[in-house]
Amino acid sequence: MSLFRPDVERIAGYVPGEQPQVDGWTKLNTNENPYPPSPRVVSAIRQAAEGRLNVYPDPVGTGVRKAVAELFGLDPDWVLPTNGSDEALTILLRSFVDPRELISYPYPSYILYETLADLQGARHERMLLNPDWTWNLDAARPLVEQSKLVFVPNPNSPSGTRWSDETLLKLIPPRGVFVLDEAYGDFADEPHQMQLLHTDAGRQIVVTRSLSKSYSLAGLRFGFSIAHPDLIAGMRKVKDSYNCDMISLAAAEAAIRDQEWMRANRDRIVATRQRLATALADLGFDVEPSQANFVWTTHSSGEHRDIYTRLKERKILVRLMTFPEAIGGKTVEGLRITVGTDDQIDRLLEVLGEIL
Amino acid sequence: MSLFRPDVERIAGYVPGEQPQVDGWTKLNTNENPYPPSPRVVSAIRQAAEGRLNVYPDPVGTGVRKAVAELFGLDPDWVLPTNGSDEALTILLRSFVDPRELISYPYPSYILYETLADLQGARHERMLLNPDWTWNLDAARPLVEQSKLVFVPNPNSPSGTRWSDETLLKLIPPRGVFVLDEAYGDFADEPHQMQLLHTDAGRQIVVTRSLSKSYSLAGLRFGFSIAHPDLIAGMRKVKDSYNCDMISLAAAEAAIRDQEWMRANRDRIVATRQRLATALADLGFDVEPSQANFVWTTHSSGEHRDIYTRLKERKILVRLMTFPEAIGGKTVEGLRITVGTDDQIDRLLEVLGEIL
Repeated sequence: MSLFRPDVERIAGYVPGEQPQVDGWTKLNTNENPYPPSPRVVSAIRQAAEGRLNVYPDPVGTGVRKAVAELFGLDPDWVLPTNGSDEALTILLRSFVDPRELISYPYPSYILYETLADLQGARHERMLLNPDWTWNLDAARPLVEQSKLVFVPNPNSPSGTRWSDETLLKLIPPRGVFVLDEAYGDFADEPHQMQLLHTDAGRQIVVTRSLSKSYSLAGLRFGFSIAHPDLIAGMRKVKDSYNCDMISLAAAEAAIRDQEWMRANRDRIVATRQRLATALADLGFDVEPSQANFVWTTHSSGEHRDIYTRLKERKILVRLMTFPEAIGGKTVEGLRITVGTDDQIDRLLEVLGEIL
Repeated sequence: MSLFRPDVERIAGYVPGEQPQVDGWTKLNTNENPYPPSPRVVSAIRQAAEGRLNVYPDPVGTGVRKAVAELFGLDPDWVLPTNGSDEALTILLRSFVDPRELISYPYPSYILYETLADLQGARHERMLLNPDWTWNLDAARPLVEQSKLVFVPNPNSPSGTRWSDETLLKLIPPRGVFVLDEAYGDFADEPHQMQLLHTDAGRQIVVTRSLSKSYSLAGLRFGFSIAHPDLIAGMRKVKDSYNCDMISLAAAEAAIRDQEWMRANRDRIVATRQRLATALADLGFDVEPSQANFVWTTHSSGEHRDIYTRLKERKILVRLMTFPEAIGGKTVEGLRITVGTDDQIDRLLEVLGEIL
């Protein structure tokens, strides 16, 4: 007799990218930012640690909501801080989707959405992207129309490509919520400034953001959602009372208030990304033009597993990704490579040159 | 048209105790520890902040699991770290309870269980305690037998009373999981050392612990669950991949490894608790003998709301608690007062002396 819910018994659980807990790896597999966070973050953490850790944190995160609101020109009631944007995705499922209702998302993309739907007992459908990562809107429309939640990461992973607001507006479910997952939003050439929220459909849109990538704070677990206050108020009922701790609230506020630091790191990453893409092409790879802090690349040999394994033997981790049953029933396979420091990328290119 | 799930639309959301974000309050309402956490915690946080916040934390919290396992003489596979023990309660509902299944819990007790059940679309039933806070096991049994989860806080809140292992063993649901919520466990005269897990029924028991109270870390959000590895493995599928951040993992490990600090604070609180109980009795209050870091007290005048309000006017916060429809259909009402520092308790007693 299993005591677990059948939905839990059935699933394998999501497996995140490898996280070796020892030093010595060139880690280009989980889209972490290779640069440290703002020194103001470290000061804020030190100050919070010497403060009043014995009392509960502000349950609604007043300070950080204010900082986010100022950044995007919104009222703080539009902002919900979360324990990483992962928690926001869980809250969204639990807020809007009942068992057997439908969620849909583009494919190939972030398959965590399927695990979250399975946990909620919900159905999930993949909206197959064209081989050039554009949308087949005619094929997507019937799924969008039936969906309670549509998740769209933009820029998308693993492709690093970005869709226009005009395309996104066609994906809003008539009786549901559109989640624009902008974990990589800050790396785009023209970062999204929440224009979509000011459209007629704005009351059905939730934008999720993460401090893990652009703010160099994957270790901190902090994200936030932006949406109409009616949506935020309901989502707040679903979250744990004190979902964000005192230290991450203080650190996140300091990080968001140091835009200069974040932008300088982003610019460095964007420059390295260009260099990486050019060098990979010289080595015979096809490289998708990226708007994120990683590139999606395939090799004409098709030997992605072999390249991944041989890099790993040399202590370089990239992400081997396989998406069966993509458009036309074909498997999409390739390597997703995080844009590291210039030194890390030099090391990668050097080893790739030896391997190929 | 509401976009929310009907279950979410229906609930009001849990309202935690008041958390004034300004100084100047004598805060005796949310069972925080008045003493600071171990200096080793502050060092661990500083070190983590200067470390690698740009990379993801260890998703399974190896270091802190080892520290907990050593403390209780278990294997680390018996331990699941969570973002506060609140997150553990949410994970338990999502792991074991499908919509319309039953959870039950003693009453008066921690009503958050009802909110969590409502969010999951589950049913909840109260097992009415006798006026002296003992169990009516005959009345409880039919509910226990139908329950998928039975939640029992021990020591209980608001009473501060503690039930024997012998009683608890009679509350294990034959086809479900028994959750022993030990948020206040360290304050008991004989803190529970997980003996229940080694009984035949041990495979159906989950013990939850919090660092918020005894370790003075309410601001940090860290808790852990202890259970048979089969239960922990399934619960791990339900949690977010990186549910605990790098700083709280490091801080929690340091806190748990400094038992001396925790015990010294606990002993101080237990001594102050005794003094508070005696002084309240002298002021005409009935005081329930407490095994926690708070006392439950009633006044023969029945003017609890008035006392609460007049204390609040003097910037002293205690918790006014009202439990309608307790045993015999009667309302249970009283004040739950956190055991603060001796100075805080002196101030409370002084003002109470003026009010009464």
